[in-house]
Parts: sequence; C-alpha cells; structure tokens
Amino acid sequence: MQTSVTVGSDSASKTVISIDAMGGDLGVAVVVDGMAKAAGENAGISFVVHGDQPTLEPLIKRKQVLEGRVSIRHAEGVVDMHDRPSHVMRNGKGTSMWSALESVRTKEASVAVSCGNTGALMALSMIRLRKAPGVKRPAIAILWPSLNPQNFNVMLDVGADIRADAQDLKVFALMGASYARNGLGLERPRIGLLNVGTEEHKGRPELHEANDIIEEDAALNGFEYVGFVEGGDIHSDKVDVIVTDGFTGNIALKTGEGTAGLISLRMRESFKNSVLSRLSAVFAYPSLRRLQDRIDPRRVNGGVFLGLNGTVIKSHGAADATSVAAAIRLAQQLAQLRFTEKLAARVASGMQNRQDEDDSKGSSADGS
Amino acid sequence: MQTSVTVGSDSASKTVISIDAMGGDLGVAVVVDGMAKAAGENAGISFVVHGDQPTLEPLIKRKQVLEGRVSIRHAEGVVDMHDRPSHVMRNGKGTSMWSALESVRTKEASVAVSCGNTGALMALSMIRLRKAPGVKRPAIAILWPSLNPQNFNVMLDVGADIRADAQDLKVFALMGASYARNGLGLERPRIGLLNVGTEEHKGRPELHEANDIIEEDAALNGFEYVGFVEGGDIHSDKVDVIVTDGFTGNIALKTGEGTAGLISLRMRESFKNSVLSRLSAVFAYPSLRRLQDRIDPRRVNGGVFLGLNGTVIKSHGAADATSVAAAIRLAQQLAQLRFTEKLAARVASGMQNRQDEDDSKGSSADGS
Repeated sequence: MQTSVTVGSDSASKTVISIDAMGGDLGVAVVVDGMAKAAGENAGISFVVHGDQPTLEPLIKRKQVLEGRVSIRHAEGVVDMHDRPSHVMRNGKGTSMWSALESVRTKEASVAVSCGNTGALMALSMIRLRKAPGVKRPAIAILWPSLNPQNFNVMLDVGADIRADAQDLKVFALMGASYARNGLGLERPRIGLLNVGTEEHKGRPELHEANDIIEEDAALNGFEYVGFVEGGDIHSDKVDVIVTDGFTGNIALKTGEGTAGLISLRMRESFKNSVLSRLSAVFAYPSLRRLQDRIDPRRVNGGVFLGLNGTVIKSHGAADATSVAAAIRLAQQLAQLRFTEKLAARVASGMQNRQDEDDSKGSSADGS
Repeated sequence: MQTSVTVGSDSASKTVISIDAMGGDLGVAVVVDGMAKAAGENAGISFVVHGDQPTLEPLIKRKQVLEGRVSIRHAEGVVDMHDRPSHVMRNGKGTSMWSALESVRTKEASVAVSCGNTGALMALSMIRLRKAPGVKRPAIAILWPSLNPQNFNVMLDVGADIRADAQDLKVFALMGASYARNGLGLERPRIGLLNVGTEEHKGRPELHEANDIIEEDAALNGFEYVGFVEGGDIHSDKVDVIVTDGFTGNIALKTGEGTAGLISLRMRESFKNSVLSRLSAVFAYPSLRRLQDRIDPRRVNGGVFLGLNGTVIKSHGAADATSVAAAIRLAQQLAQLRFTEKLAARVASGMQNRQDEDDSKGSSADGS
C-alpha cells in the first residue's frame, strides 16, 4: 500500500513533511496542487501524505515534480469539519489526521500540515504529541499583516483554548518570542499584552498579574516587553508579538478577516458601478494587484500549534493551492531551524528563570 | 454669561441638544463647525453648549446658521483624555462634561454629545443620570459597517465595562434591539451573541447561560434570536445586533478599525507606487471615493450610552466636523423618537417577562 520515499544525496537539507490530505473544504486535489507548488520551489522537501490512497495516487502521479518525493499512507477515516473534538479524541484513530500526527510522533516527519477541523487537530495533537514540559495550555499562533518592516506580527493564542491565566500568558510570551525569532527572523522581538487600554489600571485582574510576570525577566528571555497594547495596535509597528487568551484572539482574528473581506467586496462593487469605473479598474489593476499581494492572507497561511512535542501547522480550511504551498513553506522553514527543540528550550529556560526567582523570594527550605 | 435660546414656532419638532465642546483631540472649532453643519441640515435643532465661553462665543458668532439657536454655558474645567474615571468622579464638578450632562438631567436638553474621554463620560453619566431600572451595567453601542440592507449593524458593549454576566448580556440584547428599532428602523432586529464558534458547546459558561435566557422570550421582546455568532459575522447579513461584554467588544471594535486603517494605508501606497499608478488613481478616483463613502466611519460617528436615565452620545475623540455633525444628527433622531423612554420601557418589560417566568417556575408563596 506504500510508495517508497526517495531521498536524494543532499540529506542534510532534506525535510520530510507530513500532510493530512483530507478534511479541507476544497478537496484533495487542491492539497496536492499546493504540495507540487512547494516542491517545485524547494528541492529539499519530501512528503508523507495521509488519506485515501485511490484518490491520492492518480493526483500525485500527474505531478511530475512530486515524482519519487511522496510516500502515501492510506487512511480510511476523515475528520469532518463539524466533528466535535471530544468525539474525535475517542474515535479519531484510523483517520488521516491521526495518521499525519503519528508521522511526527515517530519522527519520520518533522512537521505536520492539515487543512482540517482546528479543534479536532489540536485535541489529537495534545493526545498524540503531548504538551511540552512547562506548558499547561498550548496555543495557536498566526501571522497578522502589519506595518512592521517584516510586514507581519505574530498573535497568539487565536483559539486553542478559551481560557488563559497569567502563567499561561507568560508561556505564550515565551513561545511567541521564539516563533517570531525563528519564523520572522527577529533577534529581539517586542511583546505586547492585548488589553482594552494601555494604562496599567485597565483590564482584567489576570492581565495585571501577567503584565508583571512577563515584564520581570523579559531581557533574560531575549525579548522586549512593551506592556499593554490595544486592538488597534495589532497591525502597528509598536509590537511584534501580541499575547492574548484564545477567546479574545479568535474574536480579533475573525473580526479582522471579516473587516478585510467587507472592504474587498465594497471595493469590487465600487469598480463595477459604471462603465467608466469598470474602465478605471483596468488602469488601476496593477495598483490593486500590488495591494492584494501585500495584504493577501494566503501568502502566510498557517496557524502554528505551539507548546507540543512536535510542530503542527493548521492551514485554513478553505485553503487553495497557494495557501497550502505557503503552509508547507512555513513547515519547511521551521523544520530546518529545529524550531520544536528551540521553543521547548526557551520555555524551559524562561520558566526556570521564574522558578529560580520564586525560590529566592520564597521560604523553600531545601533550596530546590 | 448666558445667551438666550430662541425657539421657533414649530416647537413640537424642536430638539435641544447639549454639547460638551471641550476635551476633543481636534479642539473646539471643529465641534462648532459640526454644530453648524448639523444645524444647517435641520432647522429643528438648537443647542446648549458647555465650555470656555471666551473661546466659544466668537466661534459661534461666526456661524450665521447658529444665530439665535445656541445657549452657551461657561465651564472652567476640562476633562483630559488621560484623566482616570475615578479622579473625574471625585473632581469632575465644574467641568464642561459635568455641565453637559446636567442639562440632560434637568431635562433642559434631550441628549448630550461629547468628544471627550469615554471612561470619564461613562463614570459621570452614571453618577449624574443614574442607571435605568433593571440595568446593572450600562453599555456603549456602536454602528458597524455591514452587508445588511441598512448597511450597519449594532454592537454592544464596546467598552462601558470589562465584565458582563448572563443577566447583563440579556439586558444588552434588550437594549440593542431597542436601539436597532429606533436608530436603524428595524421592526424585528436579529440578535446574535458573540462567541468563538456557533456550536452550542463552545465558549465560556456565562455565554451558554446567556444563550438560554436571551432565547427564551425573544418573541415577547420583539426580536429574533439567531444564537451564537463569530467575529466574522459582525459585518454579515446574518445578524443586526451583536451582543458581547465590553472587553471583547472593545478589542473587536479597535481591531476592525485597525484593519480598515491598514488596508487604506496600503491602498494609498499602491496608488503612489509609480507614475503610472498615480495616473491610474486619477481614473480610479470616483470608484475609490464611492468606496470611501460606503465604509467611512465618520458617517455614523457616535457610541451611544444605553441603560441610563438619559441618552448620551460619545463622539470619537479625533472627530472632525463631519463626524460631530453625524453624532448630532443621531442625537436629534433619538431625541425625536423619545428613545430614552422607549428603551427603559423595553428593558422593564423584558426583565418583567423574565421575572414572571422565574416566579411561575419557582416556589414563591406570595405569587408576586
């Protein structure tokens, strides 16, 4: 049932990426198109693909660039977009999603990419890959278009968990900083904590506590802490990483996407209003195209699950081939940088700093 | 110190609006420009204006349309944008903001409009006007550009209070429905509760409880309850009123504004990229102008404070004359409709329905 993987001679730079081919809204063909696109750009990528073999095989054979670079793992089951995470945790074995994570667990692949159900993917990732030491709540981090030189900010959590206490927010700061360093190449990222005002007296109690503990050893942890930021700062150049709980982050993410969608629709309507405006759209096309390229969310498709023993990338459910390719490109980059290991070390050391400090402040008799 | 108010013969349609002229980011002249603009459009509006008389008087005299329609109340103090609400509550007497609310409290004016510090304005409104019966937490409601036939949805709370329990959210639903009926002319508005997913098992416990109690007597309260909505639905035609707590609502509002700002900036950059794109902008101008008109937040400037014994409109701090005029137009509309009274009746009756139901379910012996 299994096609063999052909690994070239330059094995040092080879990256094996595990792909859950099922469960995306636009079907399997789009996923294979995305794989071909990413493979064409980078000879160092090969794949283990999980899903329905009779469907996958002919699609993959049609792509010459994938020849000898794909191993297919047949999986009968598919996690549906509407399956509840708790149901998938009990019954997910045998699905392409489970199988895709298994490849990361056994270290056959470095990173898993899936377009499937986010909640189910996080639930299965937690039971298969387990949380990294020091992490109570994993988080989903995304890249958000911004005015920064790197054009994107990191925001987390955007929906792994609806809760986060002050300690969790501290871990999010450490993980977000590590992602900004490895994903965006920022030496010393600036971290902000999302709140309804920038004054220290504003917002919820857990945010005040988090504000204190994130700040106290920021320098030791290799980031700069800029304090509270507001919704209007998510796109700004004041900050590189926005830390928040998964409820607030999810609302902010979807509100931003919705706003962009509404403007884009209204823009198309404006240019279709009359013959003259249709003509003007022809002249404006290169400018509008340039705009589209700069704010296109497909360019940076992929929420990254942070805080697990392995890296998992959730591609948008409605991802097209361009988006899938972007998610694979990100997977390749993070794998090359050995991101999972670096992040784990950063969290361990960040929480250790804090442990040391607590001990020296406290009355612990054994000095551990 | 006081200019007399000249009221014309058609007193039935006359509306007196109380204006806090101080504390906006762009200064007093912009407020007076906005008053003149609104007065020019509607002969039924007159004003009581609160602030520094030596500054206000010459500005008002210069506007012919305002002649005989403005009464100036001199106030020495100004609430600063950075003053803490608790400080203003103790020391706010004598400020233009206090004075502007006083005109509503004494029923000299129907509605107050201020461009000042939101937190301070809410704090002073609560101590001067007091909360309406049945309202534990007042809320700030705004209009949000949407795909609905009316082009705007209502969202509340966007920042009066960072907390809201299930009962508060129920009151927000009643107040938001009343605002949509009076402010947008919707007979039977559709209400949604903001959450991270539309499935009933998702989100925080207080949202599940609110989901039940908002639904139970929706028909009696004259609205349709559509259940949970997500951030991406705020701009949609699925819903007319989005109910949420003030923390989440504030983050969503500012994120939406930030996203629109980023896109607008990138669009200008795109059209300035080359000589050709500058030229194309000339051709595209009418279309871009039409787009701007449709999504321009200045057209609907004004957060309305709901749940007080009196209506207060918070205009944006950086409001220009167009924005101030829009806030005054909204004030006039709500005053004409006797909105404060209607909203109070709606909340009282909505909470009474609930009370009746609780009593009939419970074991209350006296049957009250």
